[in-house]
Amino acid sequence: MSVYEAPVEEILFSMYDVNQFDSHYESFDLGKDVVTAILNEAAKFAEQDLFPLNATGDREGVKFVDGSVSPPSGFKEAYKKYVDGGWPSLAQPEHFGGQGLPSSLSTVILELWQSANQAWCMYSALGEGACETLLAYGSDNEKSLYLPKLISGTWTGTMCLTEAQAGSDLGLLRTKAEPADNGSYRIYGSKIFISSGDHDLSENIVHLVLARLPEAPEGSRGISLFVVPKYKVAGDGSLGERNQVYCGSVEHKMGLKGSATCVMNFDGAEGFLLGPPNRGLSCMFTFINKSRLGVAVQGLAQAEGAYQMSCTYASARLQGHSPCSSSSQGRYADPIAEQPDVQRMLLSQQVFCEGGRVLAHYCAKLVDQSHSSDKSIASYAGGLLSLLTPIAKGCLSEWGSEACDIGIQVFGGHGYIQEWGIEQRLRDVRITRIYEGTNGIQGLDLLGRKVLADGGVILERYLNEILEFSDECKPISKLAYLAEAMQKRVAEWQALNKEIFAQAGGKKGYIESISFDYLMYAGYITLAYQWLRIAKASAAHSSPSITIWKGQKLNAARFCFSNILPRSAAHREAIRIGSDTILNSVLAEQSVNTN
Amino acid sequence: MSVYEAPVEEILFSMYDVNQFDSHYESFDLGKDVVTAILNEAAKFAEQDLFPLNATGDREGVKFVDGSVSPPSGFKEAYKKYVDGGWPSLAQPEHFGGQGLPSSLSTVILELWQSANQAWCMYSALGEGACETLLAYGSDNEKSLYLPKLISGTWTGTMCLTEAQAGSDLGLLRTKAEPADNGSYRIYGSKIFISSGDHDLSENIVHLVLARLPEAPEGSRGISLFVVPKYKVAGDGSLGERNQVYCGSVEHKMGLKGSATCVMNFDGAEGFLLGPPNRGLSCMFTFINKSRLGVAVQGLAQAEGAYQMSCTYASARLQGHSPCSSSSQGRYADPIAEQPDVQRMLLSQQVFCEGGRVLAHYCAKLVDQSHSSDKSIASYAGGLLSLLTPIAKGCLSEWGSEACDIGIQVFGGHGYIQEWGIEQRLRDVRITRIYEGTNGIQGLDLLGRKVLADGGVILERYLNEILEFSDECKPISKLAYLAEAMQKRVAEWQALNKEIFAQAGGKKGYIESISFDYLMYAGYITLAYQWLRIAKASAAHSSPSITIWKGQKLNAARFCFSNILPRSAAHREAIRIGSDTILNSVLAEQSVNTN
Repeated sequence: MSVYEAPVEEILFSMYDVNQFDSHYESFDLGKDVVTAILNEAAKFAEQDLFPLNATGDREGVKFVDGSVSPPSGFKEAYKKYVDGGWPSLAQPEHFGGQGLPSSLSTVILELWQSANQAWCMYSALGEGACETLLAYGSDNEKSLYLPKLISGTWTGTMCLTEAQAGSDLGLLRTKAEPADNGSYRIYGSKIFISSGDHDLSENIVHLVLARLPEAPEGSRGISLFVVPKYKVAGDGSLGERNQVYCGSVEHKMGLKGSATCVMNFDGAEGFLLGPPNRGLSCMFTFINKSRLGVAVQGLAQAEGAYQMSCTYASARLQGHSPCSSSSQGRYADPIAEQPDVQRMLLSQQVFCEGGRVLAHYCAKLVDQSHSSDKSIASYAGGLLSLLTPIAKGCLSEWGSEACDIGIQVFGGHGYIQEWGIEQRLRDVRITRIYEGTNGIQGLDLLGRKVLADGGVILERYLNEILEFSDECKPISKLAYLAEAMQKRVAEWQALNKEIFAQAGGKKGYIESISFDYLMYAGYITLAYQWLRIAKASAAHSSPSITIWKGQKLNAARFCFSNILPRSAAHREAIRIGSDTILNSVLAEQSVNTN
Repeated sequence: MSVYEAPVEEILFSMYDVNQFDSHYESFDLGKDVVTAILNEAAKFAEQDLFPLNATGDREGVKFVDGSVSPPSGFKEAYKKYVDGGWPSLAQPEHFGGQGLPSSLSTVILELWQSANQAWCMYSALGEGACETLLAYGSDNEKSLYLPKLISGTWTGTMCLTEAQAGSDLGLLRTKAEPADNGSYRIYGSKIFISSGDHDLSENIVHLVLARLPEAPEGSRGISLFVVPKYKVAGDGSLGERNQVYCGSVEHKMGLKGSATCVMNFDGAEGFLLGPPNRGLSCMFTFINKSRLGVAVQGLAQAEGAYQMSCTYASARLQGHSPCSSSSQGRYADPIAEQPDVQRMLLSQQVFCEGGRVLAHYCAKLVDQSHSSDKSIASYAGGLLSLLTPIAKGCLSEWGSEACDIGIQVFGGHGYIQEWGIEQRLRDVRITRIYEGTNGIQGLDLLGRKVLADGGVILERYLNEILEFSDECKPISKLAYLAEAMQKRVAEWQALNKEIFAQAGGKKGYIESISFDYLMYAGYITLAYQWLRIAKASAAHSSPSITIWKGQKLNAARFCFSNILPRSAAHREAIRIGSDTILNSVLAEQSVNTN
């Protein structure tokens, strides 16, 4: 019953009908026919190569023997095929061997890989961050040594940030970098939770490592970034001796069992400073929006996977009679998909995954635009992207989890059995709410750094965009009441912002006590906005004989407004009246800890 | 970091201060000192014998070799100790060797076993259902043959209901019972998802099996109940030859890995009819309230376990500085428990587990009262219990899952690692939303069979109880606004009922499209009511030097009203305006299926 079919039509609908990628891709000279062809190729690879390894990888897990890590069977062969197919270089600069396609296209395609096999993607995905950092901060020599291999996928990368005592608070990290003779450094320390820290899929692994220089300031202002290859790289690019960086153990996790999550020990490993000294954190954060958007895509991808499996199961599973069925059909039982409560669950999944996709594509387009040579476009897009990124990362990972959890419920008792595959999706997706900054951190980022820091200017621009779009929808009779509901919610949001701004300078901890609810509040209104966009696009969709499909989109949009959007009111209430009880609890905790 | 300490003080507070078990237990001649002593003994067994086997049982799982099932190491020894301690017979009738203590006490204690080791409990818990059914429908001979052994725990029991094609719809089951010579029957068929279907913890296993007699009517009215022992039982109670019932395989599950979930094959096994022919389902449902309450307790128990682990971790984990801390303390980092967003999560867990406990105890007391010799007490209690049971089963299992899920988030990256133990709680508790009737079924039961079927009479009585209790709280200044908020919600609920009643006869499927949201709606208001009861009891609590504790209870009650109760508004909105979109989807599904 485990199925996955890449939703190419839905993806094209989101890109072209909702998000206007036709005009957007004009500047890249990239036609819809080419995009469609690339998507169809990607679909094949996802369905035929990655998806069959998803369940087996979960069962087999990662082996750690004699200090070496072996990913599950088939992962290496699939990686080779991925490299041979040129996928890693898709959106990388042509100067270093990339294909120069827009970044957004790789984000769009990422969904397919992630739906098919989230664990496998951990090996291929980390190299991109290494590329971006090297592009931004590497010397010409470093660029020419590392980038072509990373971009082709011959080498892979890691991000070595977390230490046992330093997770959300990287300022606490202790790994040291001591200057050596040849301009290099010796790295000493131990990192944990290093995804793909060791494996045999690629010829070399390029670790980007946060560490402290001698006499660096304490805290987050004394952290520098280093590049530390698994095998040392000679001046001609050939591989030299093994560097002193080894995997100490691999974690046994709730999910993503096919992904090697390593403890990495640096015992005087040779490394090279990347970017200015003591600026490691900000170097690392140059691509944080991109990687957080990647996590958002994981949430959407798992929601899509769960939705497909649930629809298939619910249409095949005969159990009881639907209260809506006519007895004249004479079936001994109806598919459970005809039970209203099951449709409620399927509609919830659809709202999360299709609305989430439109939001992810919207953000991906903003990433392209934020690199525009037109400064005003780049600045506008960059601002909006920085606002929407914590919402996308936080909410799509929450909704991805919920969609998979609903999937288990649709499957009933079978949902609890590993063989059926739906419970794996929940176990795999669960990490997305934690890594790349927990969703608590996303809430702080949204409210503290994105909304309050600029006095709400960018947010107000975003809300005006929603109001204007709703105005455009009002004359369309089927959308009128959705558009009005949308504007009412935006007005509420604006009023809520005023309340928050008025109180923000007051009680210590006020902002932190409401930030997660604010994140979800913003998320639900943003989701409804995406569904208004979907409803408008489907109403305008010109293909013939898609009346049912159109109706389903409009119906799902209505469901979003009636059954999902009302959650925003609960979060609003918590924001408005819940802060004091939380801060009282903090004080009680502090009095216990200090007495 | 995995910890569990039986919360005896909290349990006594819920029983005696909130739920007035002192007066309730007068008729059982059972003093608080005795209850406390029993709880302390139970606490020792849970902490010292069951809890250490929780993580090891999850890792080791169940072995199925040569047709026999072996539970994880230590399970058998713990079961022996459980039997030797007299725990299985606690609330069973003295006539058959039980200790005659009230049923509620076993429900209260069940929490401790379930917090300590939910998987292990699957072996001990099923016998109770068998006892109740045999007590109600067994012949004198059957009672004297089976009950003493089941009650002492020497034998265990199972419930064999589900078949591959018959889950929520038991009317589809096909297992056959053919009359044999000696008044017995030969049972043929295959059952799935049979908890503790085979194992070596007890000397014999008594299966209660649903099957069809020859020429029985189709559907749920042609199902009879049979007792089928693993080893045949001679007239003198001694064990005879092996019966023809065998385990065919064990399932690999998301959680509860220490529990044997078996496919059971009946190949002409000897069985005896229990109760009237073709009335098997209603015989089985005599104890359904009790077993659903047991599932509710599992949800609460896992919430408590997750809450304890989260508090311990959050107090020990130092990371960053709390926005509420004064820099003068000079710590390099504060416990994350001092972060407002972490307190928000801990408060949510507390609200679910402590409010859930008070509700579970309230229901357990109603179970006692429903067996009162005073008919009017029994009838009132039975009615209220039947209304509250789907709420308790449905919502406590939902909240138990949420509390465990929050626990993972509190642990951050460590929450995803098996070694820390919190992710196991989520995997284990997940089944509670499915078995003993999925929560979708609970919603249908609540709205269809409990609320609408009697025209809302019992519900109205319950709502009046809340209104009256709130009236009592109003003069207490700290509770006044909570009491007013409570009454406002009840008035909304009453108005909502009127709307639903007015539409119930209308569109087909209307009730089924809103029933799950109605369940959760009822649950959140019921939870807030429990917290109003807790707040009142803690305000009146007479122990000295518990000012902080009192304040914490009141604060948690306020959090329930500000941050959790507002969810009821979202469910109310879905109920009021969401039905049409769901029913449209059902129609679209039907048109696909019939075309």
